[in-house]
Amino acid sequence: MKVAVIGGGAIGLLFASFFTQEGYEVTVCTRTKDQADLLNKEGISVKTGTGEEKNYSICATVLHEYHEPPNYVIVCVKQNKLETIIGEFCHKEKFQGSTLVFIQNGMNHLVKLPTLPQDNIIAAVVEHGVSKMSESKIHHTGWGKVKVSSFRGSIELLFWERMKKYGFEVAPPEQLSGIMQEKLVANSVINPITALFGVKNGEVLTNPNLKRLAERLFEEAYLSLGRTDRQSLWSYVLKICRKTGKNRSSMLRDIDNGRETEIDAISGYVLSLGKKQGMELPYTTFVYYGIKALEQKNKV
Amino acid sequence: MKVAVIGGGAIGLLFASFFTQEGYEVTVCTRTKDQADLLNKEGISVKTGTGEEKNYSICATVLHEYHEPPNYVIVCVKQNKLETIIGEFCHKEKFQGSTLVFIQNGMNHLVKLPTLPQDNIIAAVVEHGVSKMSESKIHHTGWGKVKVSSFRGSIELLFWERMKKYGFEVAPPEQLSGIMQEKLVANSVINPITALFGVKNGEVLTNPNLKRLAERLFEEAYLSLGRTDRQSLWSYVLKICRKTGKNRSSMLRDIDNGRETEIDAISGYVLSLGKKQGMELPYTTFVYYGIKALEQKNKV
Repeated sequence: MKVAVIGGGAIGLLFASFFTQEGYEVTVCTRTKDQADLLNKEGISVKTGTGEEKNYSICATVLHEYHEPPNYVIVCVKQNKLETIIGEFCHKEKFQGSTLVFIQNGMNHLVKLPTLPQDNIIAAVVEHGVSKMSESKIHHTGWGKVKVSSFRGSIELLFWERMKKYGFEVAPPEQLSGIMQEKLVANSVINPITALFGVKNGEVLTNPNLKRLAERLFEEAYLSLGRTDRQSLWSYVLKICRKTGKNRSSMLRDIDNGRETEIDAISGYVLSLGKKQGMELPYTTFVYYGIKALEQKNKV
Repeated sequence: MKVAVIGGGAIGLLFASFFTQEGYEVTVCTRTKDQADLLNKEGISVKTGTGEEKNYSICATVLHEYHEPPNYVIVCVKQNKLETIIGEFCHKEKFQGSTLVFIQNGMNHLVKLPTLPQDNIIAAVVEHGVSKMSESKIHHTGWGKVKVSSFRGSIELLFWERMKKYGFEVAPPEQLSGIMQEKLVANSVINPITALFGVKNGEVLTNPNLKRLAERLFEEAYLSLGRTDRQSLWSYVLKICRKTGKNRSSMLRDIDNGRETEIDAISGYVLSLGKKQGMELPYTTFVYYGIKALEQKNKV
């Protein structure tokens, strides 16, 4: 079984190590040749939350040099890089028999998937906490679930069953949107607050003033999505904060490293939902412009 | 003519240097004996915007050891220290003939002044940009006005006329509230944004995303005060941003130095006005909790 993991970021490397451990033939498709060379030479090093470090031999290549049609394509790039991947890779005829798996924050990508030619398309939501230490090293700080659900076509239960030990679980297609919304809500609360205030995820709960802001951001996301499960959704957000308490969110890491963040895919998406319903979402608007301001400040 | 300046902060030292230059007999009343000793030994050093540095010999003492009734008491402490000053100093019988001059951000102190026994009470608003480099050195980065107006009793025009060259100007009592509101609005926009995002005052204008947040904070302050001069008030805020563009606001400096800020006197006051009118002020609420969160974060 051939698995192509697209993207050499934290989640891409983590997933490549999972599939490698299961004995699948994994290729990591990177953006730069330097990273591919490094991964071919050194493999992937995974440091766990307990400090244990393991190394996995891996095959890597730059994306445009990958030609073998794989059984699975696991797309682990950010929303803002997705357009390119879909255009340059997924649409190629030789990859039309592959099953595509999309793992992105937010829900913007769902509107792009219907145009794809593949019969089987899966969307997934990741709750693992992981950060990239170098181009071949990651720190797997928080263990979580990977909720996998069909966006189009069928799901190969035997394949995913074997991945259960890494937190993977298959959800029925009718739950897909709800699962992605839950993650979106958690991201729309935790990511901008941690990035604006330079704090770890856990401080969203322990600093009472941040918690007040979190409650207001939550309320706006909850209303814009038209959900009716306020209590259990808020509990979900609190659980993610606790479970990833010692993590620095991906948005905070992006800001600290002067990279573009996923604010458009997260808070921007919530704002677009609100706008459709004529709702003003001032707290979400504040963090949206606030993160954009930090991006711009760091560029100078 | 005896002038007591209460408070050895940036504004206190700047004003002490002004009154000393005019030949008045100035005493700076400090909180710590260390600062009083240093000021008696080294005087006040004032570096101007052009880099020029001048030194002024000064007499200093800790507050509770100051006994001589002065003609003028210039109260240059922050809102949150005002209670103590009013209780320990202004209420003493020997100071009841003095004219009190209050120079604070926000407008909270105006409700405390009516209980004072003095016949002549003045409130002032400062637009000078100044930061403290050490306990005896300040950097006078931005030249601005000091608007002085009677809160109770008469105003000694001859005294203030001599201070004109330092930007002082006397405004009629009926303008006092408007002048203080203008400064409050400027502070409620500039201070929290610069402190939250760690930027100089000028960036509120040059970073378009911060400007969007500034516009929304302005709108809330404007509405909560029930003003009807939106355009000219916004122009005033922009002017202050430009004139103090290279300054780090007092709130940013407080956050950077782990000190309590004046957020309660500024955004907290705007929120209290909004509340009285049943208005929700979400942007002001965001910065209020945001600054409180940073204060708490820095305490740990």
